[in-house]
Amino acid sequence: MELRLIGIGMGALGHVTLDGMESLRGVRTILLPQKGAGKEDLAHLRERIIEASGTAARIVTFDYPTRDPAFDYATRVELWHDEIARRWSAALEGSESPVALLVWGDPSLYDSTLRIAARLDPAPQVRVIPGITALQALTAAHAIPLNRVNGPVTITTGRRLRDEGWPEGAETVAVMLDGECSFQTLPQDDLWIWWGAYLGMEEEVLHAGPLPGTTPDILATREAERARHGWIMDTYLLRRGPGG
Amino acid sequence: MELRLIGIGMGALGHVTLDGMESLRGVRTILLPQKGAGKEDLAHLRERIIEASGTAARIVTFDYPTRDPAFDYATRVELWHDEIARRWSAALEGSESPVALLVWGDPSLYDSTLRIAARLDPAPQVRVIPGITALQALTAAHAIPLNRVNGPVTITTGRRLRDEGWPEGAETVAVMLDGECSFQTLPQDDLWIWWGAYLGMEEEVLHAGPLPGTTPDILATREAERARHGWIMDTYLLRRGPGG
Ligand SMILES: C[S@@+](CC[C@H](N)C(=O)[O-])C[C@H]1O[C@@H](n2cnc3c(N)ncnc32)[C@H](O)[C@@H]1O
Ligand SMILES: C[S@@+](CC[C@H](N)C(=O)[O-])C[C@H]1O[C@@H](n2cnc3c(N)ncnc32)[C@H](O)[C@@H]1O
Repeated sequence: MELRLIGIGMGALGHVTLDGMESLRGVRTILLPQKGAGKEDLAHLRERIIEASGTAARIVTFDYPTRDPAFDYATRVELWHDEIARRWSAALEGSESPVALLVWGDPSLYDSTLRIAARLDPAPQVRVIPGITALQALTAAHAIPLNRVNGPVTITTGRRLRDEGWPEGAETVAVMLDGECSFQTLPQDDLWIWWGAYLGMEEEVLHAGPLPGTTPDILATREAERARHGWIMDTYLLRRGPGG
Repeated sequence: MELRLIGIGMGALGHVTLDGMESLRGVRTILLPQKGAGKEDLAHLRERIIEASGTAARIVTFDYPTRDPAFDYATRVELWHDEIARRWSAALEGSESPVALLVWGDPSLYDSTLRIAARLDPAPQVRVIPGITALQALTAAHAIPLNRVNGPVTITTGRRLRDEGWPEGAETVAVMLDGECSFQTLPQDDLWIWWGAYLGMEEEVLHAGPLPGTTPDILATREAERARHGWIMDTYLLRRGPGG
């Protein structure tokens, strides 16, 4: 079986690449998560992309399992991936190849699709079609470079920022998977922040400025928007030094 | 003036997003670097994208200045950006807005277009359209995740890797702008490498494996391919620990 992991970017149909569209048009089967669980907007977006591609593929669906709280974090993730792989196999029983999976953003960045695909037996031939990431949607929306001239960039998670603080020697830190505005736990004095939620979508909201002065705006916006939509996804960039 | 910085990805027409194509179609002027200086393949690619977009925009060109070796590195870059901005202004004299610039990869990543645009007077209204980066083309070609599960990633340059060694606390390091295979300067024992050149292009070449055993293959391939094409662009990912 050929399995195509197609990065679809951040919610705007326009984020999809020509390769992404063509790949989708060329498959016989599309494997989609079952709808429900809040984020209807995202399910709707997937449908729009499939429709726009003009594909004649058959759609098969699966339900995401819940993670078992009885285990430590790493084991829980492993078991969860095993179970998803089993559900993919069951859903794909008798389906024709190639098969497409639409992946939020880019399949390489904080996404488990590749790891789940590696569990399938027999092993599929995996093809990855890159897509625009949340980080790129963030820097594009603010019209800023990710790095200073030839400078390094650290990409990390909210949890690590809380647990480990500012990464040693870092100049620019990009933070994803942060449900708690973990920048609040840092010494704030010479940091600048560029923050965005619902990036690439109609609901997009942005804040930027010196961290101390911008924090209250972000907290208030995040609270209000999450209440309004029922969910929120946000990403931010922190930079150390004068002018951010 | 509205200035659109359109990320065009890594050389494959298919890397361009629907937004990128539509943005290009909607401009009155396209600002292109003059051809010459070796990389004809890249100039040709830009032409293909412009043609595929069906835009009726007028094309104006400029020459890149050379950097003045009389100054230290930082000053040299500043002066170089100043001079490019002057040339853009001269080339755009009397042109109609919106203006498009095609940017290799994504405008946020190791690219000076945003910094040069910030020097224009009067200041243009800048819009950024994200594009697929060399890093995404690399992870897609190898069908690997960028990060370990919830792990951090450091993006850096060849020069920094040589001067500063393995970044403190890093697990995954992505290296760009490296003309010297700087991974040779690291203690190699528990590192894995995923390397790619001409990513996204027909000439794409890949190597992956434990660093000690893979280094000779990369050095030999790099030498041979550079001789053959007259130029080379490569990017790689290093990961520490068992199995990379
Ligand atoms: C599981 S990761 C998936 C990342 C995705 N593969 C990518 O390439 O961006 C989810 C995280 O991405 C970020 N994210 C995803 N979509 C976003 C959006 N539309 N706006 C802001 N952040 C977003 C958030 O930090 C969220 O916690
Ligand atoms: C000036 S930076 C531009 C990066 C670009 N803005 C991006 O988003 O990838 C040039 C560096 O990108 C990498 N690069 C660009 N194109 C590449 C390609 N086709 N294959 C491999 N590496 C590439 C190389 O490391 C090169 O030194």
